[in-house]
Amino acid sequence: MSGPLRIGMFGCGTVGGGVFEILTSRLQYLRSVGVDATVAAVCVRNTANPALKALLAGHATTVTSKYDDILEDPSINCVIELMGGVTDAKDVVFKAIAKNKHVITANKALIANFMPDLTALLAAHPSVRFGYEASVCGGIPIIHTLQSSYTGDGIQEIAGIMNGTTNYMLSKMEKEGASYDAVLKEAQDLGFAEANPSADVDGYDVQAKIAILAKLGFGCHVAPASIPTTGITRIKTIDFEYAKLMGATIKLLGIAKQSSADAISVFVSPVVVPTTNVIGTVHGASNIVNIVSANCINGAYVGQGAGRFPTANSVVNDVVRLAQSVVPVPAFGSTRNVAIQNDYEGRFYVRVRLADGLGIVRLIGTHAEEAGISIDSILQLPITDRNNVDTVVTTDLAKVSQVQRMCDALATLPFVQEIPLFLPIL
Amino acid sequence: MSGPLRIGMFGCGTVGGGVFEILTSRLQYLRSVGVDATVAAVCVRNTANPALKALLAGHATTVTSKYDDILEDPSINCVIELMGGVTDAKDVVFKAIAKNKHVITANKALIANFMPDLTALLAAHPSVRFGYEASVCGGIPIIHTLQSSYTGDGIQEIAGIMNGTTNYMLSKMEKEGASYDAVLKEAQDLGFAEANPSADVDGYDVQAKIAILAKLGFGCHVAPASIPTTGITRIKTIDFEYAKLMGATIKLLGIAKQSSADAISVFVSPVVVPTTNVIGTVHGASNIVNIVSANCINGAYVGQGAGRFPTANSVVNDVVRLAQSVVPVPAFGSTRNVAIQNDYEGRFYVRVRLADGLGIVRLIGTHAEEAGISIDSILQLPITDRNNVDTVVTTDLAKVSQVQRMCDALATLPFVQEIPLFLPIL
Repeated sequence: MSGPLRIGMFGCGTVGGGVFEILTSRLQYLRSVGVDATVAAVCVRNTANPALKALLAGHATTVTSKYDDILEDPSINCVIELMGGVTDAKDVVFKAIAKNKHVITANKALIANFMPDLTALLAAHPSVRFGYEASVCGGIPIIHTLQSSYTGDGIQEIAGIMNGTTNYMLSKMEKEGASYDAVLKEAQDLGFAEANPSADVDGYDVQAKIAILAKLGFGCHVAPASIPTTGITRIKTIDFEYAKLMGATIKLLGIAKQSSADAISVFVSPVVVPTTNVIGTVHGASNIVNIVSANCINGAYVGQGAGRFPTANSVVNDVVRLAQSVVPVPAFGSTRNVAIQNDYEGRFYVRVRLADGLGIVRLIGTHAEEAGISIDSILQLPITDRNNVDTVVTTDLAKVSQVQRMCDALATLPFVQEIPLFLPIL
Repeated sequence: MSGPLRIGMFGCGTVGGGVFEILTSRLQYLRSVGVDATVAAVCVRNTANPALKALLAGHATTVTSKYDDILEDPSINCVIELMGGVTDAKDVVFKAIAKNKHVITANKALIANFMPDLTALLAAHPSVRFGYEASVCGGIPIIHTLQSSYTGDGIQEIAGIMNGTTNYMLSKMEKEGASYDAVLKEAQDLGFAEANPSADVDGYDVQAKIAILAKLGFGCHVAPASIPTTGITRIKTIDFEYAKLMGATIKLLGIAKQSSADAISVFVSPVVVPTTNVIGTVHGASNIVNIVSANCINGAYVGQGAGRFPTANSVVNDVVRLAQSVVPVPAFGSTRNVAIQNDYEGRFYVRVRLADGLGIVRLIGTHAEEAGISIDSILQLPITDRNNVDTVVTTDLAKVSQVQRMCDALATLPFVQEIPLFLPIL
């Protein structure tokens, strides 16, 4: 055991409040299993917030708005960072480590973007333990599982639904045939989606998460901005109809997979997922991470991807591991020499919107052939408007650059109405 | 780190051979992450086994058939027990702990039946670490997850498909409409089911597993033999037809759930599972454990429940945690004062085989009422043979003793052809 933890918490809103509630309401039980953890101080912007006052009433926790009140306090040996962002939060986390305080954070953007710096800083401060279970998929213990259950295994693919907002939206579109715009508005009205929904719908949230999992699974730092990322904004209800024809559905996935013995591909995209695959069965705001590996063959971890208590529970798990001295080190696993292959390979679904006419199949075939792509099937649902026909082509194994080339070429044809949409098929 | 592990392995067949292969083939990588583990000796019945000789060729591992050659060897600091059974295996495990050797075992029967003795013995030998990840659900890291990810949470229900053989059989019956006898024979021909399939089909395998998970989840020892256990032998294809009518399927589950603030119910039974529940989507030989809890709401862990490398991987995970000193203690979690309520409550599916006639619904209703059961629905698929009609009654919340009483009473009626089958509904 590590001895008592005196925690300084930065940010005490939805998740932080949940952490405080769990640590205080389960105090007695936690002590009985060797976890002596007290939130000694919280640092928040508005120290007069009534909800905060209510939360802390009757507890000896001090409240401050000055970072250094915690960072310079030698009696505080653990920092929980729940501010978010990569500016002040970065300063807080880096300074806490430099001061030899343990750090627990839910900040995916900070970890994904500054992992090499964090690794170096942690190596220089070997007594510091760094927990970040809450940074990926809220209540699913995927960080700890990757840290501790695949050491003797060889991971081949990590694929997951890691954004509840978009999964809620896609599930609605599939189930109710609602349009993208309608489900986005509904998600915004319900508070699931932000007024500016870009982080979710453009895939940036997933980008940071898959970067973190790729490091744990394959040992290589992947800069989030370098990950080919496609969001869900171009998905239409017709795509679900075609997917259904294929015994599949559409899910926004982050994928990191071995592409050769010493290279991996990492990307974020809506993916056509067969409904027989466990990923295809996870609907609504739930998340799933599915891991394909040499020994375990297939393991899936399903749970709530966000929310006050699922996320707070993951933060508390880090507190417990810290108190019980069972935090795996190094925090980000081993580092291996692995190349990143952005031009990933797969089978693809390509939807072409066109005005119906003669010779179209021949022209699609010509452009596929010119891009070196072998066509697997051409699907056509009943046509209602001959000027706006959505036709779907599925390909055999091809590189994404080839598919991009074919789509760019098809877009120049007079009867093609818009740049074709392409999605990998799982 | 714990320093080098010198392992003595008892049993070196399917799983043991897999463990040896993983530890030797990944030796270099494991050392790079602080895992220095060598299988110094194996103890097997037939030391001349050619497959064993081939496996060990080129390695310094010694082979013996005498338990004490390992147990009395002070240079061996870790025992892996893969013999199975509760006779010799028990002697080996208990003596190893007494000799202050760490123990890793896949032996569910040993753990489930002797957990109180093991707990006491481990308390008397505090330096000993005890790993048993492989004892439940092969490749799913469920033991470690329960040990380390729910400390700040409050578990309300653990329910799982924990036997691949019966899940394979039930999946086949559902998908192909095959009879129980036909799928059992096929499973036996394929080597999935034993010549004497009782441990699987009568639910005893699941009984031991849910006893272990109940301890980790709820803190109370549950004697396996005390767990109400129903196997799959009475399930017929007609049950899948009725389940389908209910938007459900049938799965053999081990369930441990909170029945009141200080009591739990533990049972093993085929269960009617809605196909919208993630448990209902896991087919074939796969396993799943689904955990309902206060903070995380719902978490599901899916994977291979058996097989050489999935199971061996779990054994290796215990080796890794031991070498990295991140084994949670106490091994079986905290012990709490929780009552066991065998007379569990639920909604039930009751199938009554009868000869069609006048007044049947009234009589069923009378007997339900006499047992204090409120009927939710009566289902009737089209009748083909009026002398053998399968009718299904679903109940509102009732205790299993009430349902049993109703079934016993119905069985005495002249037109009822056999004791009605009842299954809980998830």
